Amino acid sequence: MNYRLILQTIGKILLIEALLLIFPLIVNFIYQEENLFAFALTISILMVVGTLLIMVKPKSKTMFVREGFVIVGLAWIVLSLFGALPFTLSGEIPHYIDALFETISGFTTTGASILTDVESMSKSMLFWRSFTHWIGGMGVLVFVLAILPNSEGQNIYLLKAESTGPQVGKLVSKVRFTARILYVIYFGLTLLETILLLFGNNDLFESIVTAFGTAGTGGFGIYGDSIGGFSIYSQIVVAVFMMIFGINFNLYYLVIIGKIKQAIKSEELRWYLAVIVVSTVLITTNLVVNLNQSFGIALKDAYFQVSSIITTTGYATVDFNLWPTFSKVILIMIMFVGGCAGSTGGGIKVSRIVILFKTLKREIQKLLHPNSVAPIKMEGEVVDSGVVKGVSVYFAFIIILLFAGTLLVSFDGLDFTSTFTGVIACVNNIGPGLNLVGPMGNFDCFSYFSKGVLSILMLIGRLEVYPILILFLPKTWTGK
Amino acid sequence: MNYRLILQTIGKILLIEALLLIFPLIVNFIYQEENLFAFALTISILMVVGTLLIMVKPKSKTMFVREGFVIVGLAWIVLSLFGALPFTLSGEIPHYIDALFETISGFTTTGASILTDVESMSKSMLFWRSFTHWIGGMGVLVFVLAILPNSEGQNIYLLKAESTGPQVGKLVSKVRFTARILYVIYFGLTLLETILLLFGNNDLFESIVTAFGTAGTGGFGIYGDSIGGFSIYSQIVVAVFMMIFGINFNLYYLVIIGKIKQAIKSEELRWYLAVIVVSTVLITTNLVVNLNQSFGIALKDAYFQVSSIITTTGYATVDFNLWPTFSKVILIMIMFVGGCAGSTGGGIKVSRIVILFKTLKREIQKLLHPNSVAPIKMEGEVVDSGVVKGVSVYFAFIIILLFAGTLLVSFDGLDFTSTFTGVIACVNNIGPGLNLVGPMGNFDCFSYFSKGVLSILMLIGRLEVYPILILFLPKTWTGK
Repeated sequence: MNYRLILQTIGKILLIEALLLIFPLIVNFIYQEENLFAFALTISILMVVGTLLIMVKPKSKTMFVREGFVIVGLAWIVLSLFGALPFTLSGEIPHYIDALFETISGFTTTGASILTDVESMSKSMLFWRSFTHWIGGMGVLVFVLAILPNSEGQNIYLLKAESTGPQVGKLVSKVRFTARILYVIYFGLTLLETILLLFGNNDLFESIVTAFGTAGTGGFGIYGDSIGGFSIYSQIVVAVFMMIFGINFNLYYLVIIGKIKQAIKSEELRWYLAVIVVSTVLITTNLVVNLNQSFGIALKDAYFQVSSIITTTGYATVDFNLWPTFSKVILIMIMFVGGCAGSTGGGIKVSRIVILFKTLKREIQKLLHPNSVAPIKMEGEVVDSGVVKGVSVYFAFIIILLFAGTLLVSFDGLDFTSTFTGVIACVNNIGPGLNLVGPMGNFDCFSYFSKGVLSILMLIGRLEVYPILILFLPKTWTGK
Repeated sequence: MNYRLILQTIGKILLIEALLLIFPLIVNFIYQEENLFAFALTISILMVVGTLLIMVKPKSKTMFVREGFVIVGLAWIVLSLFGALPFTLSGEIPHYIDALFETISGFTTTGASILTDVESMSKSMLFWRSFTHWIGGMGVLVFVLAILPNSEGQNIYLLKAESTGPQVGKLVSKVRFTARILYVIYFGLTLLETILLLFGNNDLFESIVTAFGTAGTGGFGIYGDSIGGFSIYSQIVVAVFMMIFGINFNLYYLVIIGKIKQAIKSEELRWYLAVIVVSTVLITTNLVVNLNQSFGIALKDAYFQVSSIITTTGYATVDFNLWPTFSKVILIMIMFVGGCAGSTGGGIKVSRIVILFKTLKREIQKLLHPNSVAPIKMEGEVVDSGVVKGVSVYFAFIIILLFAGTLLVSFDGLDFTSTFTGVIACVNNIGPGLNLVGPMGNFDCFSYFSKGVLSILMLIGRLEVYPILILFLPKTWTGK
């Protein structure tokens, strides 16, 4: 294990975090709030620790898969540990574990909150809280790669370890350029949403933080009723942009370079849109028939919630906890689907689900034709059998984590639905669950032990299992 | 597809069912009940249809995997369709769909009941209801193989299609003898439990039907409080025998032929017992600490419920629906574990769960040593990679069926916990779930549509997915 390289990279990340904390500090000045101390002290600590760490010179710049995973896992933990400081130092979230939960929920773009009265928070803290979504959405390491000059070649391991789905490719030959292109798209879309929200009776602050939460598919709201108080126009803007941020960014790149046809042909995109349409139709029908809602409102709310949950954002316009069980079960199901690979959305990812279903279909067909050799295809190409196996294994991991998490959190003695959906919402980085942790509830009902468990689950979910699990293996630290 | 062979085999099975229905008819005479017509008419119908079908002479006796699955899937459906007749003909379960649900629940050894007042049923109907557990527990086709002279060789496909786990072997060279040995063990253990129950203040009828429900890991009780009214001695007898029937019968064969050491060394057995011990200890502690129960009673009830749920029997001594969430979550988790391969227990099976965990462990280790080749071992032998993949796929199937079932059943608008645990209880052939379908509740709260869905899920669960799914494939019936 190349410890020196790991430490040095963590040092760089801490310095970047110091840099990022300047933005909430600016907000603090604009609104003349009293969080100067909290932000300044955190920045100072980050700069001292970061500087000390980057002075560690690695003997070799060689990085393998293992180092990639360890750096990513550690980076996210360390970022959260320091990122939580302003909340506690300012006294706005007095208990550090609560602040850490909120920060991890932010960086992992989960959006689960322990705040019982979000509207009493200062604007600078709300800004930092939503900004963590924006940073975490695209991946912290991608950001590091985008802005830092670094040895090329092996950084692909970092990108792979942090990023998503079965298919992480390089858009262009150099990893750094890929990262930059992705960030430009990310920034552009966020800006576009902010501007559109400004046209919808939202002030600049509302528009920016809401766009942060949408872009990162995070979901931290700044009001007790999430997006419920926004104009219908703004609600629709947010709904559409949530869907947009759940699409593979590579497709936007294809559009930019003029290969629109190729982008539209994406098999994953089509499945993703199909799931959204079918779920929206089913829920709309359910709301109209069972709750006697008007078609227009039902369609708007159904589409918003489907777009919010499948992308794992977690914004809400209504308390879907009060919806019929059928609609709730659909929401729980698409919680597992998640966004497309290569998007900012969490969850298992559409491509994995599609491959899983294709695998199951092939297994059934093998019963009829035991000797048939039918490779699984995705996007018109044969999927490597290692990837196919990896998908089943990943699915099993998520389900088992879900069970284990539910067991640990059930110590608190909350009802089964709250416990179970709370864990689902954290593992899949959604945010709200049902009952006590529904869209109008919060996670403060859990004990500190459970908040700790849920924090780890959020990290595991966001980093797709391995980077966090590897940190818990003794062999990682003792072996060669 | 060898249709003629399929029809002929179904005919044989129907004649056997006619034979089996003589037993409840005898009970009817003993207790001088009025169900002569119901049983006699059903027997007559079975004999006519069965005789017509066995007159279909197959041109060839060749049977492949495909025919094996189709025969097994059809056999269980047809058995249930006819087996439900006495309930409706006698008027004791007026609606045929209810009777069918109850019969499928019986044959699949699920034990979920739609009866709101089980104690008002006649003894002969209760006998038939519990007898279906005993028949279904060991497998109907195994029974057919055991008693009918048939062409050897290809019957292994029937055994494989009906039976369990990744490791179905032949104990002795001839399938038929294997089936007979298994049935002798099954019969002997059932007899032993019946005798032991007679010593516990239970009359002969109670003892026999309770033993039927235990042996098949079914769980139909004949009282509203399941086993709660039995003496503590009897409760412990049932608890121990549930555990016994959850163990691979091959191990009993090993014990009989003197290879006791080899039986005790079974890895699956050790994991199975470990799960039981750990779950019992955790629940006992939870009951003592949170509910202030006395240690002895808590231990007895915890052990009983763990033994009942892991083997997918479903008997209850207390309303565990009132237990703390932590204990309930443990029960839900072991619902998925199920018994050992080659036992009468349902669920995913211990060996599959162990292989799944070993697969996940290997995947993590591969992160550290990407080029390592670490085969997965079970019972000291390398597990074929096809089996390893099959286990992940099977697990994925069960989870997806669970989601799909929950969605369909959620139409009824019952609460999420009842809906979700009801589906789990049917897919894994347990019987009771939580809330409305808890151990003191019943499945009558569901619509006929949901009862139909749950019936199919019970069949899918008992026959381990493929034999039922294959019936729904158009290619099964059109292809060569």
